[in-house]
Amino acid sequence: MDDKKVLIIMGSDSDLPVMKKAADALEKFGVVYEMHISSAHRSPQKTMDLAVAARDNGFGVIITGAGLAAHLGGVVAAHTTLPGVGVPLAASTLGGADAMLATLQMPPGIPIATVGIGAAYNAALVAVEILAVQDQKLADELSRFRKEMAKEVEEKDAALQSGK
Amino acid sequence: MDDKKVLIIMGSDSDLPVMKKAADALEKFGVVYEMHISSAHRSPQKTMDLAVAARDNGFGVIITGAGLAAHLGGVVAAHTTLPGVGVPLAASTLGGADAMLATLQMPPGIPIATVGIGAAYNAALVAVEILAVQDQKLADELSRFRKEMAKEVEEKDAALQSGK
Amino acid sequence: MDDKKVLIIMGSDSDLPVMKKAADALEKFGVVYEMHISSAHRSPQKTMDLAVAARDNGFGVIITGAGLAAHLGGVVAAHTTLPGVGVPLAASTLGGADAMLATLQMPPGIPIATVGIGAAYNAALVAVEILAVQDQKLADELSRFRKEMAKEVEEKDAALQSGK
Amino acid sequence: MDDKKVLIIMGSDSDLPVMKKAADALEKFGVVYEMHISSAHRSPQKTMDLAVAARDNGFGVIITGAGLAAHLGGVVAAHTTLPGVGVPLAASTLGGADAMLATLQMPPGIPIATVGIGAAYNAALVAVEILAVQDQKLADELSRFRKEMAKEVEEKDAALQSGK
Amino acid sequence: MDDKKVLIIMGSDSDLPVMKKAADALEKFGVVYEMHISSAHRSPQKTMDLAVAARDNGFGVIITGAGLAAHLGGVVAAHTTLPGVGVPLAASTLGGADAMLATLQMPPGIPIATVGIGAAYNAALVAVEILAVQDQKLADELSRFRKEMAKEVEEKDAALQSGK
Amino acid sequence: MDDKKVLIIMGSDSDLPVMKKAADALEKFGVVYEMHISSAHRSPQKTMDLAVAARDNGFGVIITGAGLAAHLGGVVAAHTTLPGVGVPLAASTLGGADAMLATLQMPPGIPIATVGIGAAYNAALVAVEILAVQDQKLADELSRFRKEMAKEVEEKDAALQSGK
Amino acid sequence: MDDKKVLIIMGSDSDLPVMKKAADALEKFGVVYEMHISSAHRSPQKTMDLAVAARDNGFGVIITGAGLAAHLGGVVAAHTTLPGVGVPLAASTLGGADAMLATLQMPPGIPIATVGIGAAYNAALVAVEILAVQDQKLADELSRFRKEMAKEVEEKDAALQSGK
Amino acid sequence: MDDKKVLIIMGSDSDLPVMKKAADALEKFGVVYEMHISSAHRSPQKTMDLAVAARDNGFGVIITGAGLAAHLGGVVAAHTTLPGVGVPLAASTLGGADAMLATLQMPPGIPIATVGIGAAYNAALVAVEILAVQDQKLADELSRFRKEMAKEVEEKDAALQSGK
Repeated sequence: MDDKKVLIIMGSDSDLPVMKKAADALEKFGVVYEMHISSAHRSPQKTMDLAVAARDNGFGVIITGAGLAAHLGGVVAAHTTLPGVGVPLAASTLGGADAMLATLQMPPGIPIATVGIGAAYNAALVAVEILAVQDQKLADELSRFRKEMAKEVEEKDAALQSGK
Repeated sequence: MDDKKVLIIMGSDSDLPVMKKAADALEKFGVVYEMHISSAHRSPQKTMDLAVAARDNGFGVIITGAGLAAHLGGVVAAHTTLPGVGVPLAASTLGGADAMLATLQMPPGIPIATVGIGAAYNAALVAVEILAVQDQKLADELSRFRKEMAKEVEEKDAALQSGK
Repeated sequence: MDDKKVLIIMGSDSDLPVMKKAADALEKFGVVYEMHISSAHRSPQKTMDLAVAARDNGFGVIITGAGLAAHLGGVVAAHTTLPGVGVPLAASTLGGADAMLATLQMPPGIPIATVGIGAAYNAALVAVEILAVQDQKLADELSRFRKEMAKEVEEKDAALQSGK
Repeated sequence: MDDKKVLIIMGSDSDLPVMKKAADALEKFGVVYEMHISSAHRSPQKTMDLAVAARDNGFGVIITGAGLAAHLGGVVAAHTTLPGVGVPLAASTLGGADAMLATLQMPPGIPIATVGIGAAYNAALVAVEILAVQDQKLADELSRFRKEMAKEVEEKDAALQSGK
Repeated sequence: MDDKKVLIIMGSDSDLPVMKKAADALEKFGVVYEMHISSAHRSPQKTMDLAVAARDNGFGVIITGAGLAAHLGGVVAAHTTLPGVGVPLAASTLGGADAMLATLQMPPGIPIATVGIGAAYNAALVAVEILAVQDQKLADELSRFRKEMAKEVEEKDAALQSGK
Repeated sequence: MDDKKVLIIMGSDSDLPVMKKAADALEKFGVVYEMHISSAHRSPQKTMDLAVAARDNGFGVIITGAGLAAHLGGVVAAHTTLPGVGVPLAASTLGGADAMLATLQMPPGIPIATVGIGAAYNAALVAVEILAVQDQKLADELSRFRKEMAKEVEEKDAALQSGK
Repeated sequence: MDDKKVLIIMGSDSDLPVMKKAADALEKFGVVYEMHISSAHRSPQKTMDLAVAARDNGFGVIITGAGLAAHLGGVVAAHTTLPGVGVPLAASTLGGADAMLATLQMPPGIPIATVGIGAAYNAALVAVEILAVQDQKLADELSRFRKEMAKEVEEKDAALQSGK
Repeated sequence: MDDKKVLIIMGSDSDLPVMKKAADALEKFGVVYEMHISSAHRSPQKTMDLAVAARDNGFGVIITGAGLAAHLGGVVAAHTTLPGVGVPLAASTLGGADAMLATLQMPPGIPIATVGIGAAYNAALVAVEILAVQDQKLADELSRFRKEMAKEVEEKDAALQSGK
């Protein structure tokens, strides 16, 4: 069993500020990743190439981020059997409801594991959880991360109580 | 200038009852068509092949029909410069709002000419209008069709008046 | 077969900044266009006159842009058999969902080929695709445009990789 | 001051079962009406003719009923200064949300007085209220109607109490 | 037949900037109005008093403007048989969709003639149209207003053509 | 401290099948209730009378159920300081989204404690919870009810396991 | 019968500016409260502890505020039989529609008394109304508060009339 | 590395007909699963116990299915670091939009990998994909499954062509 990497693909460089949060989260867990810009519609060949080769290239999860009629996750999912985590991006006047439905409502047979609108950070956590299924060390990291989150909330509450 | 055909693609055979209306309408106008089942996700290669070869095979317009996170129109559009007419199908509990947004909200550069939810009949009319741009005979057919529609409405109104 | 022009109509001069993108895109493809302000409700006669005369005046496609209860595309469509491409504009607190439905959900018989909310640029591309059905030179232009888009995406990805 | 009639126009004969309720309500108030089928898109000339001539023909209010991208009320409103009451009809998989927005969200200058989805009965009551502004007898009828409604509610409540 | 006034009621003084447009429009048509702040929920008695007395006080139409769960139009409508024109206001994070439905979807028997979200200007035009049903002079004013609107649109188009 | 009753008001007798579930739930907890039909719009005086007198008549909570532009909860809330629990009913083609927003989005100062669409049963539980704040016996009943629910779920799971 | 306190819990310290309004309102009514930050997901144990101990700790109502997929109110409700008042917060690109549905649409058996999006102030008023069911002095405070609100509206109207 | 099982939890036995499809799909891939009924709100302790013990009990993925204000996935996710796949169920008049948002829009830190409304079958495929990340045999099964799907689509298309 070897350490799998995470492949992040976004449809446009304008998605970088949001999708960067996925990369940052992966780094915190020491998970190696590659991040690419490739469009489902404007560079379909490159997108397919990335998807088709992903498993052989050592990737374990593919995170995609796209807005509007977000087809990126679907095009990737159609060309790999790796789990795909989709991040619907809010790139329209509809607050990302379009990308949400275009990512989530996949037809039977080719699912996308979708996270919330703009939730690139959470997509990274899903990827880490997936890689941690067979990796006890990563699972321990996740447990530590969870405890730290709980502690942070409790410290904020303590500050609220004392500052009251 | 040669007569162009219309290519109809739907994502699933369950879409046939709705998409058949496009075929019927094209027949009424004497427009030759081919109708195929091919999925953006389950048979992506076949879908791309159909799109890539469409212009050389004598097609002038491609009508796609798909429900849920409808990516079919986008996958087709990414592989042809023929005008693509998208029919969002109501295949979910959301009444087709998912397919509507997944078809309509295409990113800059690769549009889909979208018609109403389930409006395969109207998609055929768009195709005929497109083919009629350089085909006066077909344009005359469309004018006759319009007049007939107006006449039908007027006859129904006359029936209402007399039956009142 | 003669070169067809594109007619752009918008309901209000406040729509100009968005609809201008359609004009700009057409220019890039060397497609001749005329752009008019005419309202479905406030200047209905002028709107009808534009639509009725469009084919004889050498137009091949009519692009309409309107917000709110966007009836402009429908009024135009009712008075011509040229393909009409509708751009729903976001002119309300509902993010253009009103114009989207008022343009897209046309009744059987009189379709509007609708593009995304505010997607005037894509409307122009649909128009070019329509005109390119019987115009190989324009079709070649579209192919070049597609390749350039793919190249741009790839360059942005290369920049991302090297900058990483 | 003469008694004004009410003009009811619906876009399709399939709208008759709903729009009939407007006619029935008007009859209960002794208000004379004419009911027509005429489409904004399929018979635009007839629709305009009805609207343009309405005031001279003795009408005081025009009720329109249409579904989908409901443009009928707008086309009528653009050709008359009589108050137009619009009934959005539920003729799609979206429960009439499309017709609601296409009727309600009219641009500045040409309003439609819109009632609820499918609320043809209420449209008739709006028409009666409009005609009753200058007609004390009709206003008295409305007051009686209101009292009767209140009485009916109270009788149903009494039945509930005694049956308990 | 005497000249009727228009009563404008809004639920909160924060609604004044929007509802002021109704007052301004009425002034342009020389229609006398009164404008009041009164809430359906916080000052229900005052609201009912205004509604109950409106007809006797010489009003012909009541315009109400309210946001959120907009009940103002309904409370007014329940206490008068004058036509009520409702303006749903965008006072929430939902863009006024809440007020729209709370105003439009009135139950059978007590309608509100609803205009678009924030469309106080159009509400005034509906009121003028209602008062013009039996007032030829006001009807002529409306016709002039319509022609002026058409002229404005045409002038803007002419400017666009010459500036091109 | 005396035992308070619960007042149930619904806008129409067609709401009885749903609202009956509130009554049934109250009976299970031995909470005395009265159930009335009274409309915010059609019988506003009766509705106000019920609300104004409720506290003096020994009621502790008022449950209202209404569909469409549901104003009943608001009219009641405006005339009492008792806690009002609102049940939005699905009485339209919009699945009760209209009643939900018209009940939930009350303006500052006059809240309605809203439960889910059609959730009359849950409204009764809220009422019981409110009455149990100062009534330990009723609070114990609620605890028993909770335990029973948990047991039911566990029994169903056990059945699933053994039947597998 | 002893005076009950109100427990306010919010999921994140970023919710404080909105939830503070609940605290301020309670203070105006002299109702004692405690305010805590505790997340349903990040500090689930602490959240449950707060809920389980609430009744014994002298609380009568629990107000929760959370955004996105707001589960806080549900987690709290599952561990107490005290009435829970939920405030859906607008923390996403969907304007709080997500939190609204995640709070309101609770399954049968475990309700949340939900107020409008961001309506922390109204949540406090619901809490006061609940505590006032058996507390005549608090009920009198509520009556005074209502009268003051009515007076404020009337003063604003008076100012509008005189300033006109 | 040992074979991981899949844990399926649904909130109510009424969800069984839909969630059964996840079990069936897992069986087809030879993946061992356990299926439980346990509610986030009615049996919170049991739900937490299942989640907390899941990793030690040999599970690699947890699939949850719940309708309405679907908190089940969140409660489970808060108590395990295993990847959670959420199936929003259509159990309301809103077509499952409530469950979709209550599952998808999880706050930062605790994600749910969400699939389409009612898409239990796809949830199982996500689980298989996750387990196949480190399991080449399962990955090969997925590839076979994909090829079979493509073949099925092609056979249906062939049938359509020959039947034409």
